[in-house]
Amino acid sequence: MESAIRIRAARDGDAKAIWSIIEPTIRAGETYALEPDMSEAEALLYWMGPDRETFVAELDGVVRGTYFIRANQAGGGKHVCNAGYVTSEAATGRGIARRMHEHSLHHARTRGFRAMQFNFVVSSNERAVGLWQSLGYQIVGRLPDAFAHPTRGYVDALVMFQAL
Amino acid sequence: MESAIRIRAARDGDAKAIWSIIEPTIRAGETYALEPDMSEAEALLYWMGPDRETFVAELDGVVRGTYFIRANQAGGGKHVCNAGYVTSEAATGRGIARRMHEHSLHHARTRGFRAMQFNFVVSSNERAVGLWQSLGYQIVGRLPDAFAHPTRGYVDALVMFQAL
Repeated sequence: MESAIRIRAARDGDAKAIWSIIEPTIRAGETYALEPDMSEAEALLYWMGPDRETFVAELDGVVRGTYFIRANQAGGGKHVCNAGYVTSEAATGRGIARRMHEHSLHHARTRGFRAMQFNFVVSSNERAVGLWQSLGYQIVGRLPDAFAHPTRGYVDALVMFQAL
Repeated sequence: MESAIRIRAARDGDAKAIWSIIEPTIRAGETYALEPDMSEAEALLYWMGPDRETFVAELDGVVRGTYFIRANQAGGGKHVCNAGYVTSEAATGRGIARRMHEHSLHHARTRGFRAMQFNFVVSSNERAVGLWQSLGYQIVGRLPDAFAHPTRGYVDALVMFQAL
């Protein structure tokens, strides 16, 4: 039986669940260019800030993933959006990341965005790079040694892009 | 006689001069991904925000240019910096942009940054692209149609990078 994944807009009451999902990723410091020791309040201000829309993915009624979407630039760059996605460690391999991504592309088109850009995909995060490539993203830029990985040292970061 | 260009840290009292320099660039909407109709307060909050250091360039004692420098990312990305530069229209061709850039690279090294990255160089801004290339920047990324130019339509934006 296929589990039911439901994506919906995040509410203030989801903050604790969102924090429980994003905290391990932030603390690990391996995939997002965020301060690993940032506080819960700082992290939620970032993830649920007024400049973005935030969604959660429920698996069998429990919040297991979250993503945000925002304009990547202002002015002449605001037709390109950016997004960030995190799935609960406990629920990896269930298709949540892929479903959130599909939802985000659909939502982006609804909002009139013409492309999705990921500014800083850590190259050692091979699962993410492979997922994005399988979903149609091109590597359009490579930032040499732009990420200080906690165990691998300096690794490249990738800019990935998909027209919508 | 060579004019004297002096770079110094911006003070609160420089806000009006800075606004007079950056306003035409912002209003034109041709080179920076900022809202062309942003207010003076919004623009100064951006240019002189607490997450960056802001400098001014004086030519013969008059503020004719300004730049900011900041970490381009947080966490594992904070060893790469980013900067923005604007020179007064009335003082172009006097070497101010080049001197501000030299100052910014020196300052970046002083601060421990290991590279400088420009995230969004509008490709139709050929003077800037040429200047950055002459100063050692590589084009490490190309964002297709990522900038809506007010007269040329969609043009590419470039990611440019230089190790320090």
